[in-house]
Amino acid sequence: MSIITLTSDYGLKDHFVGALKGKILSEFGEAKIIDISHDIDPFNTLEASYIIEASYSSFPKGTVHLIGVDIELNKENQHIVMQWNDHFFIAADNGILSILSQKIIPQKIVQINIHDRFPTDATDLDVFVKVACHLAKGGALSVIGREIDQIKPLTNFEATTTDAGNTIKGHVIYIDHFGNVVTNILKKYFLEIAKGRPYEIILKTKNIKTILPNYSAVAHSDKYPIKSYEGEKLALFNEAGFLEIAIFRSNPSKVGSASSLLGLNYRDVITIQFKSEHK
Amino acid sequence: MSIITLTSDYGLKDHFVGALKGKILSEFGEAKIIDISHDIDPFNTLEASYIIEASYSSFPKGTVHLIGVDIELNKENQHIVMQWNDHFFIAADNGILSILSQKIIPQKIVQINIHDRFPTDATDLDVFVKVACHLAKGGALSVIGREIDQIKPLTNFEATTTDAGNTIKGHVIYIDHFGNVVTNILKKYFLEIAKGRPYEIILKTKNIKTILPNYSAVAHSDKYPIKSYEGEKLALFNEAGFLEIAIFRSNPSKVGSASSLLGLNYRDVITIQFKSEHK
Amino acid sequence: MSIITLTSDYGLKDHFVGALKGKILSEFGEAKIIDISHDIDPFNTLEASYIIEASYSSFPKGTVHLIGVDIELNKENQHIVMQWNDHFFIAADNGILSILSQKIIPQKIVQINIHDRFPTDATDLDVFVKVACHLAKGGALSVIGREIDQIKPLTNFEATTTDAGNTIKGHVIYIDHFGNVVTNILKKYFLEIAKGRPYEIILKTKNIKTILPNYSAVAHSDKYPIKSYEGEKLALFNEAGFLEIAIFRSNPSKVGSASSLLGLNYRDVITIQFKSEHK
Repeated sequence: MSIITLTSDYGLKDHFVGALKGKILSEFGEAKIIDISHDIDPFNTLEASYIIEASYSSFPKGTVHLIGVDIELNKENQHIVMQWNDHFFIAADNGILSILSQKIIPQKIVQINIHDRFPTDATDLDVFVKVACHLAKGGALSVIGREIDQIKPLTNFEATTTDAGNTIKGHVIYIDHFGNVVTNILKKYFLEIAKGRPYEIILKTKNIKTILPNYSAVAHSDKYPIKSYEGEKLALFNEAGFLEIAIFRSNPSKVGSASSLLGLNYRDVITIQFKSEHK
Repeated sequence: MSIITLTSDYGLKDHFVGALKGKILSEFGEAKIIDISHDIDPFNTLEASYIIEASYSSFPKGTVHLIGVDIELNKENQHIVMQWNDHFFIAADNGILSILSQKIIPQKIVQINIHDRFPTDATDLDVFVKVACHLAKGGALSVIGREIDQIKPLTNFEATTTDAGNTIKGHVIYIDHFGNVVTNILKKYFLEIAKGRPYEIILKTKNIKTILPNYSAVAHSDKYPIKSYEGEKLALFNEAGFLEIAIFRSNPSKVGSASSLLGLNYRDVITIQFKSEHK
Repeated sequence: MSIITLTSDYGLKDHFVGALKGKILSEFGEAKIIDISHDIDPFNTLEASYIIEASYSSFPKGTVHLIGVDIELNKENQHIVMQWNDHFFIAADNGILSILSQKIIPQKIVQINIHDRFPTDATDLDVFVKVACHLAKGGALSVIGREIDQIKPLTNFEATTTDAGNTIKGHVIYIDHFGNVVTNILKKYFLEIAKGRPYEIILKTKNIKTILPNYSAVAHSDKYPIKSYEGEKLALFNEAGFLEIAIFRSNPSKVGSASSLLGLNYRDVITIQFKSEHK
């Protein structure tokens, strides 16, 4: 199977995404094209990073991921392909892929160097399409670029520890369709630091003392119907492993969401404080 | 052909829908995946019911419909599959499917019971994906669940008759992209009660005396161009058979829509009054 | 390969687009269906024209383009198919296709005349689906319509020249997802009129003196990082050849866009003034 996924900030109103698919099918009619998201906040590489990290593992090994965020070629923005964990990622070298490369060492990175083989009116996206189809057909990386060993880092993505290991300091990296707030605090990192200690998640105006295994666990008593817990705040690790602050059965346009009700916005700080002694 | 349709309240901004498709293709690469809607109002089972009812018949027999609205497994919310009218519907037992089962008796209903075969970090959606692919491949229902004979009803979905059969009382169940207002009054039900009598549709502030065969029929005189009828209110039965109140060539963000111009909101009451004598 | 593209004003909230795909697959299971856009401004034939013109050439020859904007059959609105530049376009004869036919003479135009072969409850879209599948399968035009030689023109689409050839007068035909403003001034037309003369683009409140080859070219000095040019206005010809007024790395919901920052709305006039002498 030859899957090409698409992630971009192009939106779905314009013809861009449709035209992109037309170009892919013109080049490689057997490609299976899957949209991941086209509603990345414009030019927001951090948001693109999160979406890629949270979704790539749902696709089979060998999938080609085309990332159309801030791709115009210029002196600061080279085009790269990263082979990583048996997936291929095509993007501009603007930091988006460093979230992956910081976690696992890439198998290979190349800087695309075939731009001079295109007509003068070709676009940056035309180059990405050619590369994506080449890889989806099983072509070699060495044919379309020269190997490099460094990519641009994405700054401020990772959560840190302060206060002699008693506090995790993270921030909001994404607000989802339900208004739930995703932080950069990973479950694995939390467990390493927590070492079983009790903790409190400090939000802007409220605190949360327990991270739940799932949303419905907010209904802690069997005495009341689950419906009676609608609107309660909670914390859990989402499927991608990131700490999420949520409102049970939130509806942003009606009752409100974690973002609106708790006043949490993109880049806001969220800390977890550990107690030195078990109580 | 193996079609799996997707209906959810996940929105298209996040990676959820793309990841869902990746999981389906990982499990069954030949699946044809078609989005019905991912903009169901969050956790709104009534809206999901309408969208499913209005669209299923456009797909071939044997199609598998995966409905991702309010699916977290909990004490009140079991996972079910309903085989109905030669289609398969996978949903939580939260009332969504009762709009179908009240109309035609289901061929078979099972409560999914394979959750213990999944790793502990599997999600409810992972279970739905496995079941959808199993059915799309032609697998048997008995393998993935135990047969049940009852599902949860959806309350207040159907229109009723009052005033000794002289009034149909319905309400608004959906407002579409054009701002047109869909009611729960079905054409078949209307014809049964009307028995050819004259009628008046009573809206909040206006009445309508005729149900038209199509939108353009609002242009009743050949003297004027059709354009001159833009903005006029009208009623018709939509393709799914539901009474719809519309504005001819409405544009919600410019001239306004049936919802905005007539002040009709979700759940508002709409009645049809019949006259006892033909005039 | 049998590609059918879809362009409509149906939006993605409702079930219409999913149901349309279900009908296509019911009729022709091998069709590859690609969405171009479903967010055409409701009943806006000018916007639909632009989207079709800007995207058709990304698809292979033989592609069938189904255009679902204002298609209800009535005394003024016939259904047509235009074979043009080896693509097929199915639309209502409401002006949408004249943007193409004014540029290159169509190979064939037919008025669809198979409506009487459908059941009485069939919709206009059912007719389009049947025609699209017939053509995607390689069927002949003559089977589904009678040849005609005229289609309705779209008025006010083209830019004009005034002031003895010293001024091009165009207007805004589209505002894209990034808030960039697309005008009806084509590169080819501009070059013909300009004949190498210096020029100034006159916007509502600001002027622009250079049309750039791409967005990043706004960073004219190597002394500063590209980031320092974010928010600057610029002009370029977009991939479809239309003059576009843009803000470098715009974000409509945050820093603003060409439309919001320069006060440019749909149908606003934009002129280019040429100087009679080279300076």
